[in-house]
Amino acid sequence: MSNFLYVIPVMGIIALLFMIAKSVWVSKQGSGNEKMTEIARHIAEGAMAFLKTEYKILTYFVIIAAILLGYMGYVNPRSSWIIAIAFIIGAVLSAFAGFNGMRIATKSNVRTAEAARTSLSKALSVSFTGGSVMGLGVTGLAILGLGALLIVVLNLFGVINAQNGELEKALEVLTGFSLGAESIALFARVGGGIYTKAADVGADLVGKVEAGIPEDDPRNPATIADNVGDNVGDVAGMGADLFGSFVSTIIGTVVLGGEISKQPGFTDGYNGLSPVILPMVIAGVGTLFSILSTYFVKVKEGGNVQRALNVGNWIAVILTAISAYFIIINMLPATLTLRGHSFTSGGVFGAVIVGLVVGTLMSVITEYYTAMGKRPVNSIVSQSSTGHATNIIGGLAVGMESTMLPMIVLAAGIYGSFAFAGLYGVAIAAAGMMATTAMQLSIDAFGPIADNAGGIAEMSELPKDVRAKTDILDAVGNTTAATGKGFAIASAALTSLALFAAFVGVAMPDPSTQHIDIYQARVLAGLFVGAMIPFIFSSLAIAAVGRAAMAMVEEVRRQFREIPGILEGKGKPEYEKCVAISTNASIREMLLPGAIALVVPVLVGFIFGPEVLGGVLAGVTVSGVLMGMFQSNAGGAWDNAKKSFEKGVDIKGTTHYKGSEPHKSSVTGDTVGDPFKDTSGPSMNILIKLMSIVSLVIAPTLANRFNSTVPETGAVSPSGAKTEYRDARAQATSTFLYGPEVKNLRIMAVPDRNRFPG
Amino acid sequence: MSNFLYVIPVMGIIALLFMIAKSVWVSKQGSGNEKMTEIARHIAEGAMAFLKTEYKILTYFVIIAAILLGYMGYVNPRSSWIIAIAFIIGAVLSAFAGFNGMRIATKSNVRTAEAARTSLSKALSVSFTGGSVMGLGVTGLAILGLGALLIVVLNLFGVINAQNGELEKALEVLTGFSLGAESIALFARVGGGIYTKAADVGADLVGKVEAGIPEDDPRNPATIADNVGDNVGDVAGMGADLFGSFVSTIIGTVVLGGEISKQPGFTDGYNGLSPVILPMVIAGVGTLFSILSTYFVKVKEGGNVQRALNVGNWIAVILTAISAYFIIINMLPATLTLRGHSFTSGGVFGAVIVGLVVGTLMSVITEYYTAMGKRPVNSIVSQSSTGHATNIIGGLAVGMESTMLPMIVLAAGIYGSFAFAGLYGVAIAAAGMMATTAMQLSIDAFGPIADNAGGIAEMSELPKDVRAKTDILDAVGNTTAATGKGFAIASAALTSLALFAAFVGVAMPDPSTQHIDIYQARVLAGLFVGAMIPFIFSSLAIAAVGRAAMAMVEEVRRQFREIPGILEGKGKPEYEKCVAISTNASIREMLLPGAIALVVPVLVGFIFGPEVLGGVLAGVTVSGVLMGMFQSNAGGAWDNAKKSFEKGVDIKGTTHYKGSEPHKSSVTGDTVGDPFKDTSGPSMNILIKLMSIVSLVIAPTLANRFNSTVPETGAVSPSGAKTEYRDARAQATSTFLYGPEVKNLRIMAVPDRNRFPG
Repeated sequence: MSNFLYVIPVMGIIALLFMIAKSVWVSKQGSGNEKMTEIARHIAEGAMAFLKTEYKILTYFVIIAAILLGYMGYVNPRSSWIIAIAFIIGAVLSAFAGFNGMRIATKSNVRTAEAARTSLSKALSVSFTGGSVMGLGVTGLAILGLGALLIVVLNLFGVINAQNGELEKALEVLTGFSLGAESIALFARVGGGIYTKAADVGADLVGKVEAGIPEDDPRNPATIADNVGDNVGDVAGMGADLFGSFVSTIIGTVVLGGEISKQPGFTDGYNGLSPVILPMVIAGVGTLFSILSTYFVKVKEGGNVQRALNVGNWIAVILTAISAYFIIINMLPATLTLRGHSFTSGGVFGAVIVGLVVGTLMSVITEYYTAMGKRPVNSIVSQSSTGHATNIIGGLAVGMESTMLPMIVLAAGIYGSFAFAGLYGVAIAAAGMMATTAMQLSIDAFGPIADNAGGIAEMSELPKDVRAKTDILDAVGNTTAATGKGFAIASAALTSLALFAAFVGVAMPDPSTQHIDIYQARVLAGLFVGAMIPFIFSSLAIAAVGRAAMAMVEEVRRQFREIPGILEGKGKPEYEKCVAISTNASIREMLLPGAIALVVPVLVGFIFGPEVLGGVLAGVTVSGVLMGMFQSNAGGAWDNAKKSFEKGVDIKGTTHYKGSEPHKSSVTGDTVGDPFKDTSGPSMNILIKLMSIVSLVIAPTLANRFNSTVPETGAVSPSGAKTEYRDARAQATSTFLYGPEVKNLRIMAVPDRNRFPG
Repeated sequence: MSNFLYVIPVMGIIALLFMIAKSVWVSKQGSGNEKMTEIARHIAEGAMAFLKTEYKILTYFVIIAAILLGYMGYVNPRSSWIIAIAFIIGAVLSAFAGFNGMRIATKSNVRTAEAARTSLSKALSVSFTGGSVMGLGVTGLAILGLGALLIVVLNLFGVINAQNGELEKALEVLTGFSLGAESIALFARVGGGIYTKAADVGADLVGKVEAGIPEDDPRNPATIADNVGDNVGDVAGMGADLFGSFVSTIIGTVVLGGEISKQPGFTDGYNGLSPVILPMVIAGVGTLFSILSTYFVKVKEGGNVQRALNVGNWIAVILTAISAYFIIINMLPATLTLRGHSFTSGGVFGAVIVGLVVGTLMSVITEYYTAMGKRPVNSIVSQSSTGHATNIIGGLAVGMESTMLPMIVLAAGIYGSFAFAGLYGVAIAAAGMMATTAMQLSIDAFGPIADNAGGIAEMSELPKDVRAKTDILDAVGNTTAATGKGFAIASAALTSLALFAAFVGVAMPDPSTQHIDIYQARVLAGLFVGAMIPFIFSSLAIAAVGRAAMAMVEEVRRQFREIPGILEGKGKPEYEKCVAISTNASIREMLLPGAIALVVPVLVGFIFGPEVLGGVLAGVTVSGVLMGMFQSNAGGAWDNAKKSFEKGVDIKGTTHYKGSEPHKSSVTGDTVGDPFKDTSGPSMNILIKLMSIVSLVIAPTLANRFNSTVPETGAVSPSGAKTEYRDARAQATSTFLYGPEVKNLRIMAVPDRNRFPG
């Protein structure tokens, strides 16, 4: 094995070392007075308790899934059982990334509050460093894990260079890693999302609306659960999510790169592996530049926090883009070919730039639709003056409208990156976007830390100016959360397409059958069913929040009624009962949506074959992207419409403030938007990637089952060939279902004629 | 020309004669006291004034579109200019169908109120007969128009039998008819939908919520506008909508039937035209049985109105299904072939049955999700107890969930009808579902008539028991409206697929190029853009309602404030100002969504070619069906959740009635649901059909432009052929854009390489 491969895990280790250093620094900061420490301890304990419960359930899932994967590798010569081990590693690292981020976040929150007693600059420093521990942890683990695993499997499958040994099988193992990571991501995002929003909605509905007490008021029994939720949903959930995204974006490119590499005669200075390792190198370099740029995020007292973050982000992006140019031109040969389509190394760099432009545009558009003072949010504000219903109508309309430009940008991005470098271009565009994930995630994770710091300041009754400082950070955090979601959905869309293309290549190895033709009735039927999945998934997620929030409301009402003196601050609220409601609801309700994402591709693939599954994947992707943007943006816009009232808004000559009727209407919208933007909306990007990865993992087995004897055009084959085809299928099935011994079983084959002629 | 063709228009004439008879009968009924007559006159005048304004605007549109169509027929030898005339006829008949239904509805409403003074039986009789005038008018005009036009064009293009003369061009003219009908349908549905919901939402928000006065209270200035809205939206809009649906469903089958007919050697007893005329004959027979079954819709005093309607409906459906069997077996030859796929006449009947089963299941599922007392509506009811926000979350979750089973049913229906009779099967399944449109529409249209009757009873202060009777009819009307929408979206989905298949056949005449391959980057990009259109369309529609409702609220508040004694019933409200607000808003706001539906297919088709347009159409269809069901069902469920409070609902041991806090929350949901279920939701089915029809109409020109020299697989052609291909394209473009004289102009061609290899 060549030494250049070791560069990749080394970059991961560097990131982890910086993470440890930053983590130590945060821990050394002062954690405030006794009351603050106690509240912080409550939050940290609640969060850890939830994570323990969640991970216990997920352990069962991982074991069962690993056994199934191992079995598939055992019965199918085209699949490998080592994939099961990679799956477990991916799952464990993803869980650890979430855990690690949360651990530091529950330390940083109280330290940020304490720092805010001194200065805004210090508070930003602590909260952003806390966020960057998460960012570096996620990317460091991913790069180390992927790089090390790549070295191991290349050795294991005897890949001396790309044309020697079994490169395909080696890379297939990496898809197992990615499957593990994204599965945990989905459960963590949905579970955490249900937890945090059940608590948030419940706390707001009784606290703000009914009892008229402010947010994070210690008299509210749901307030600890709400703050725990910020950590398990917005931090641990997001950490697992971005670990998964980062990994699967790289994997999509790696698999397509493998196809380029293994072509006879392909040579470069890297044993023919340059297209495979390129995305990992870019990701590693992007992470190193992210580390560098964290040191540029600084703000003076009274300065602009958003600008400080933007400066850091742009430094990372621009340095990464420039170095990507030299890396690509040096690593790749001048011309590459994938599935008959030729392109240049310059084209690959062009595709990276397309990815960066798409990501930037998505962030800009998302910000426009969710920022205070712009037309969309203002329209919701003015529609709040005529009641709850018009506020809701306004928000739904904004959310739906907000899909237009991003979809056009994405379509142009697909078109453009393909024009530059074919399918590899689509994949590398996504990888380019995600290269600075470490920086992106640092920016994203600082928001909930600041939010929590504000909560602790409020609950410990610190002076008003402390809360004012954390509020500045929190407001910036709301914007970065929204733009981060726009970015996430764009990269997920491109990644899914890369994975989709990789799936087609593996499941339909014969180039003449590489179509997903929606003019065929059964493929179109697949498109219909696939497009429905994001709807049912969202429905399950938001209904779960609605139900859990109701239970929370009833519990809080009960405590207000039954605990004497609670509203006067004399009776002690039973915080732990509210924590228990959120925990139980989220664990119970995350399972079904997760199962749908995992089971549907397997069922469709094995019953109807790869082309119908391709239709399903296209449906899931297109509708998932739409629903993700619709829900995230509507939620973000409602949130900021509500926030607009804090400074007072002018509607047709009258100024309305907090507590006015229009403000109450805007709270309704914000509450509806909560599960939209923090539960179902951000789950969409994981859903579409996970279903693509599941398909890619089963692709070798599908190829074995559906392409073993004759190509898919069975309809026009003579009847003899058709029979042979069916027999082959039936045998493949029986082999898969019952192991290699049972060979004479027949199952009903899918009728061949159910394919549009042509 | 053969005599058997004359059977079709004759069936249309029979339907129109019955319509006239029923219309005369309704006019003869007593129209009540002076106050009732005056209110009815206000409503009728308001409705007619709106329709006049709307039709004036649409006249400009029809003229411009007709000129463009005529021009296309002039420059492109494959297209016919007569299509422009057919377009005008289709538009005029659609407008007339809406006008006619509304004229009789504004007569029936007051007569139903008067009849309700006598008995429920009489009231049902008057309102249902009023509805059936609409039902028979729509179907009679459609059958007469289509049948007569078919005879004319067959003569004009010298089609002695299917293989002699230009059958293809003749049928192309019918697509122009359908384009006219669906264009008017879209504008009428959107315009009427904005009108009615702006008035309804506005009236409710100030009247019920703020001033605490009941619905239809004469003190509410928006109340006349609200009742006018029922007529222009729910009656005229729905009439134009179903005229369009009925026509385009038939056309989808006719065009595919034409492909079967023109194959050399195809013979039957009908000059080879049986596959073409079959859908018209089934539609005609279905209409005759619908006439018969209207006489079975009767109810005794205190009887079950829903059952009376169901009996009538089932008689029509069963008789039509039985006769369809004999018609199909007798008309069609035993075996047919379409695009290389063979099937039997028995298979065609099987497809009809699939269509009926799909339609029935869709109605049943829709009823489950929107009916009082079932799990979905009850979940919204119980979530109303914790406030506006949880009510909204509950309704959104129900709406999203409600897409699951229908999408699976539709996918199975596509799969099944195709398995029975190929593409022709998919088309005839839709035609079978729509055959009893006359009965369906009679049932649908009686609802708003009863609703209006209730309004008139309230405003004229008739005894409470009169309103009680109209309320029974109105409640049934709400259910039939919901199930009708489920039915409409199912038939639209199947029709769109038939039109989509017809489009592929015409735009890509070479069978080897008949693919819509979403594995190609540019086609997938098309899918993304297409799927976004229903979102932006819905956004425009509901935002328009929100804005207009706000204006209405402000106007009503102003009148309450400025007109002395208005709330004591002494001051006279200025009804006409509210009517003007709705009229202006709806006319102004219907144009942009309508333009999107018409322009996008043309732009995409001419710039990117038929395959990308195919991707767009698939995207629009799948996302339009989802959004249609989501919005209609959420709206229906919210409505009935609110209605549940009228009888009192039990939530965790406490009974809540009208006026309670949970009821107020449920009113919010109902208000949000109003534009969902009556503006954007039901527009979706027209949107998807209209975009397919536009594509089908431009298909011959696209075929001319994109397929003239070499097939689409330019990527793998030698470079010489590629150049030739581009030249041919460029020439075709210049011919199209600048007329036949300018031939040497070059435009940039779409890069061929932007196609996935394979």
